[in-house]
Formats: sequence, C-alpha cells, structure tokens
Amino acid sequence: MRDILPDEAAVRDRAMATILDVYRRHGFVRIETPAVENLRLLTGGEGGENEKLIYKILKRGDKLAAAQDSGELADLGLRFDLTVPLARYYAQNHAKLPSPLKAIQIGPVWRAERPQHGRYRQFTQCDIDILGVASEVAEIELILATAEALVALGLDGLTVRINDRRVLAAIAEHCGFDAGRFESVFIALDKLDKVGRSGVAAELARAGHPELAVTALLELMEAVAGRGSIEAVRDLARLVADRADPAVWEGLTRIMRSAGDQARELAVEFDATLARGMGYYTGPIFEVRYRDGASSIAGGGRYDRMIGKLLGRDVPATGFSIGFERVVGLLMEQGQSADGEPARVAIVLDRDTPHLGTVLERARELRDKGNVVLLELRGRRLGKQLQDLDARGFGRIAVVSPEGALEWRDARAQAGEDGR
Amino acid sequence: MRDILPDEAAVRDRAMATILDVYRRHGFVRIETPAVENLRLLTGGEGGENEKLIYKILKRGDKLAAAQDSGELADLGLRFDLTVPLARYYAQNHAKLPSPLKAIQIGPVWRAERPQHGRYRQFTQCDIDILGVASEVAEIELILATAEALVALGLDGLTVRINDRRVLAAIAEHCGFDAGRFESVFIALDKLDKVGRSGVAAELARAGHPELAVTALLELMEAVAGRGSIEAVRDLARLVADRADPAVWEGLTRIMRSAGDQARELAVEFDATLARGMGYYTGPIFEVRYRDGASSIAGGGRYDRMIGKLLGRDVPATGFSIGFERVVGLLMEQGQSADGEPARVAIVLDRDTPHLGTVLERARELRDKGNVVLLELRGRRLGKQLQDLDARGFGRIAVVSPEGALEWRDARAQAGEDGR
Repeated sequence: MRDILPDEAAVRDRAMATILDVYRRHGFVRIETPAVENLRLLTGGEGGENEKLIYKILKRGDKLAAAQDSGELADLGLRFDLTVPLARYYAQNHAKLPSPLKAIQIGPVWRAERPQHGRYRQFTQCDIDILGVASEVAEIELILATAEALVALGLDGLTVRINDRRVLAAIAEHCGFDAGRFESVFIALDKLDKVGRSGVAAELARAGHPELAVTALLELMEAVAGRGSIEAVRDLARLVADRADPAVWEGLTRIMRSAGDQARELAVEFDATLARGMGYYTGPIFEVRYRDGASSIAGGGRYDRMIGKLLGRDVPATGFSIGFERVVGLLMEQGQSADGEPARVAIVLDRDTPHLGTVLERARELRDKGNVVLLELRGRRLGKQLQDLDARGFGRIAVVSPEGALEWRDARAQAGEDGR
Repeated sequence: MRDILPDEAAVRDRAMATILDVYRRHGFVRIETPAVENLRLLTGGEGGENEKLIYKILKRGDKLAAAQDSGELADLGLRFDLTVPLARYYAQNHAKLPSPLKAIQIGPVWRAERPQHGRYRQFTQCDIDILGVASEVAEIELILATAEALVALGLDGLTVRINDRRVLAAIAEHCGFDAGRFESVFIALDKLDKVGRSGVAAELARAGHPELAVTALLELMEAVAGRGSIEAVRDLARLVADRADPAVWEGLTRIMRSAGDQARELAVEFDATLARGMGYYTGPIFEVRYRDGASSIAGGGRYDRMIGKLLGRDVPATGFSIGFERVVGLLMEQGQSADGEPARVAIVLDRDTPHLGTVLERARELRDKGNVVLLELRGRRLGKQLQDLDARGFGRIAVVSPEGALEWRDARAQAGEDGR
C-alpha cells in the first residue's frame, strides 16, 4: 500500500470526475458498500484466486477469547473486489433500488498480493453494473459508456475485445474436453497471446486433458486467430457445428456491430481466446486494451447466477470495471481533461427493436449536448413505467416507435395507458 | 457499517465536490494515505480512546504461524482518523511535498464502536491541515475555508467556538490543579454545557482533584460563561493573572477578530470550556456547531508536537475536520448546491503584517470570482519563493506591501531578487 502525493491525487480526482460525468450521462447512479464484509460472503467461492488474498480482521473481546483455533480468529474481511459486495448489496436492498439498477461503484479494494511493479495491495476499482437486464443491450451500454469514459480521459488507440463464455463452452465441448473441467481449458486458452500455441498445448497436457481435444482446439484457434471480425464469429459457429444456442452467436454479433458502429475512436474485435479469470461469468465477456499493451485496462462480463445464490432467485447482471490504477498510471505519463452539468432524458425501447443503431445514435447526440440519457427496455406496463421515470426526475421521456422514431411523451398524460 | 443507497450517494458526491471546490480555491491540495497502517503507529498514544477501537488485521501465513500469543496475531490495523496517518505521511514524504503543506484528505476511517443512532463503524472524514506554519494565520485560513465550505453546502446558523489548550493550562494552573493531571480537568470541563456546573464538580471530585481547585475553576467559569466576546478573553487573561505567554492571548484575539470579520453568515465565539478530546492538541482548538445543536459538525486544533515524534524534529501543524456523516445527515433533511473551474493566485504576506484583514478581504473577493487563492507567508528568500509558486502553477502572484497593497509580480523577472 502506498501514499499518494498531491500531483497524482490531482490526476486521480480529475480522472474520477471525468469517468463519473460520462457514467452519469449514461443514466448510472453511484452507490457505496462498506470496505468490510462478512468472511462467509467473501469466501463463498465467487472470488476464485482472490479468496486466497483476503485481509482478515481479527475478532475482538469475548469473540476473540472464545475462538477455538486459528480458523476462528476472524469473521470479517476487507473486500477484494466490488462485484461480490454488489451482489450482497442488491440481495439486501433490492426493494429500495430502481429496477433495473444501473450502478456506479468507485472505491478501494484490498488483496494481499506479493508486491510487484505497478501493483499495490490497496487499489481503486471503478465499476459500472446493470442488474435486472437479460438482453445484450446492457452489454452494449456498458461497452459504450466505458469506451466513452476512457476516450474522455484522453486515451486513444483503444481496442475492445469480446467473447462469450457460452462460445468458449461450445468450443471446449466440440473439441471433446471433459465437461467438468472447462474452466481450466479457458484459463490456459486465455494465455495464448502470451505463451503461444505450444505454451497452451503444454499447459493443457500437463493438466491431463486428452491429446486429441488439445489438437482440435489449436486447429480451431488457427482458423480464427487474429481475425476479430463478425465473419470470424460466423466461421467459428460453423466450425463448432452450431453448438450453443443461436441466440448466443446472434447476441455476440449484435454487440460487436452496435458497439463498433457507435463507439468512436475505438476498435471492436472478437477474440475466441478471451476467457477472463473469474469463475462467475456466464455470458458475454469483454476487455479493453490500450494501444498494443499486453494487459487490459478494463474488463467485465455477464454473471447471471451470482445474485441468485444470495437472493434465492436469479437476477441477470453484467458489469464493466475500469482498472483505475492502470489508467491513472497512463495519465501520469501524459496530460488532462474536462467537466459538465446535465438535463435528464429517458428513452424507452423494445428489447428486440430493429432500430437499436438509430436509437444509440440519438442517445449519443443527446449526451453530446450535455444531457443525461437513460436507455430503458419497455416493461409490461408502459404507463406505470413512464410515471416511474418521471418520479425519478427524467424531465424528457421518449418511446421508440415501431418505425424507430423517438416519440416524446408527457409522463403524466400517459398515466392511464396501462389501464390503471 | 452500512450500505449507501443511490439518493444518499448523490448527496454525498455533491457535498464532497462542493467542499473540495472551496478547499482548492483556498490553495489546499488533495493527498491520500492507505486505509491500513502499522499497529505500532496507530497505538503510539496519539489516538486517545480511539486506540481501543482499532480493527486489527490478522497476520498471514508464516507470520501468523509464528505468533506466540494473542497479542502477536496482528501487526496492521485500519486507521481510526486521518491525522495520525497524516503525521506518518509527512514524516515519510516531506522531501517531496510543498512546504508549507496545505493538505486535503477525504476518506473512510473505522472504529469498532458500539453501534448507535447516527454513528457507524465506517465513516468518512474530511480534513484540511496546514503543516509548517507556526503563525495563527494558519488557524484563520482553516476556519475561513471550513466555514466557507459549510456555508457553500447551504448550512446556516453556524457558530465557530474557539479556545486554546495553553489557555486551559493557564486556567488549570491558576486554580491549583496538579500539573500532571490537566488532561482530565479539560475533559471534565468540556462537558459543562451538557452536565452543568454540579456535574463537572462531581466528576472532578470523583477523580480526586483538590476541592479548592474545583471551586476556583467553577468561579472562574462563572465570570466568563456564556460570554463569547474578545472582552471575555481579556477578562479571563486578567483573572488568571496573565499566566501563559502574552502571544497566546494575542493570537486567540487575532483569530477571533479576523475570522469574525471575514466569515460571513457565521458567529465566532470564545468558549473557555472547549477542550476537545484528543491528547495531541498544543494550541488553538475550535469547533463548529450548527444552529443550537449540542454536538459539533466540525472540529480541529493545533498539534505542534505530533510530527516531531516520528520525524525527530517538530513541525508546526494545525487542522480542521468536517464530520462528513453529520453534515450529509443535515443535507439529507434539506436540499442542495453548486460547482466551478478556477485560475490560480498566490498572495505572499509577512507573518506579522498589520493588514491581515485587508489581505483576507482581497483573497475572498478573488475567490468569489472563482480563483484559487493561496496565502503564503513570506520566506527568507522571496525570489526563490516566487519562482517556486510559479513552478507550482500560480499564474498570478502578489506580495503584500508594507502599506497593505497587493503588488503583483512577475515571478521570472524577480528570480534575481535574493541574489541567486
């Protein structure tokens, strides 16, 4: 852990203000959870390797005296990320939260890692998450908001790499890996650009995976490696004989097309080797690289089953996290940014509107003029939904017509529309 | 510890932005220290009662296995305030810091208190400190900046209450208390407005203080109680036969007059019973009350000997801390505030200028126009000082003339002034 001197503190403050401004104009709201959580939550299995790096807090007084062995000395710990606490927060507070929840979290997390260059034991994460939206529109929003924040910080040469855990599973299944051991296949594959094909093959062999499966995997990768286009997605789908739901391939294509069309100063690429370390991902996964850097400056993905473990019913969820320390490091090597104050606009659209591109374009124009713009999927009772948006302070509300036009509504005049 | 829902998070963010904006316009710069410090530092005796409330972090791996008894289970802890870490930060980084250092710190602190209404085990503090200035000009700046921040938040009916630890010592000495036990006298006296004279007398008697001293103390208090004016300070000085250095009484008077003249929408009062809980205070102490609230929403004081214990040489230091959770609580009961972007002005003045009031008035006018205004005491080598200010980004620099006028300088043209 380290001290932050005034020059860096100023860069951090400005970066945070810039990121917050962009996220707010995308309709996200800030929330906070405490630094300390129950160890039971933190060691529940969602944290993967990070669970080994938890700083545990010593019990006090009678509770400490009553501890029978070294495993009972602590019942609290410092959080190692912001996603596990968010799941707990949502499970506990969902009745008081907007639905869907578009949350911003910025705060320190702690990991007892061996100190190394550029990595600290306390570091700041900066996450946005959308809870309650199963559609890939959520992923598109996350990617556009995150990319816009990074561009607003003055970073150029950004590439968003996209994959889907279900695509990885289809690949692994097709190649003949053991269904119970996919995770270790993904993790080996994730290292392809660092260790090369022979390195991946060696790791998979060491782990005892079938030789035929390894060969099949490497051949498959050869066919799509270095090709980031939508065509590569289609080719891969064919190569794995359309394993995985067609909706998975379509979703991936839609994310790539929408994000690619909308996000300026940004490349969007498919990467069949992208796996990401955490065990909790269930759908699209993505990360951002800066210029030709080997490691990512932002990453995230869909985790539809984490909240269910705490709440008892699944809540679809997806999030994107900016590696704030890495970004500040890059900014420290350069110069700096801007600010604004916004009006609030909501746009209600159908889940499967064919006009998504047009709507996103309009949303961007509105944001560029300094407005907060919230995209909301149309619910079952539109009148109620418009009333709620009005109550949440959205002064201008539009519904996307079947023809793709923005129809501006007066929330109060529409209150009877769903028959109430 | 608790979750923060979106509505409160928005109020917190706006409040923080408002406070930061005012502090920056007063020339303070943000710094950060980690949440976790060495237990040796945290239990060094500066934290008073708070040292009993530390969350300790369990050692890991071999270090934990090697622990001989329950006292050796932890070597790190969560900070309980921002002042003790600031002293450590300054001792460690002073060579890389501006001198004097005008620091802003905003961040969470942790105390394992019994939960009660409106108090949490994790809460945010918002401190400004001036390190390296022995003159009471530092206190005046702290008071004006803090008052301006609270007024900018929309809080009205503020009263700043001021005393000095050396005045308290003079009172205790005059009344005949045992010099080694002054601290417990101060703490009893601090409760006068809550428990009344009989309550204070009872506590002092229970603690075994001489009856004559207790009687003398209560008589003295009767003579000045409820009188917050500069005359009350003069009367008290006479009553304790001018114990304490004349500079102490003059300094107190000067702080009261300057802060009272400058701070709009604010009452400034002397309070001979004000003591404040921490053991480390050495000079002027102050707190802010909101309307007729019984507890303070901000507090601070001078602690000239804390840094010396870590650095080996004393560095004068004084600070003012806003109770952020209390303030957010008040704002949640009301409405909200504004923003800005500034130019940087520095004003260099002599330590004992008779024109302090005029200078402060000009500084306020400049800030009201949206400038960052830094007050700096004139150093031994003015030319070097002007160059340094220029290097720190102060585009406009004025030196206060013997007649009290602001003489605007060009830092580069003055570089030869101290003979270099």
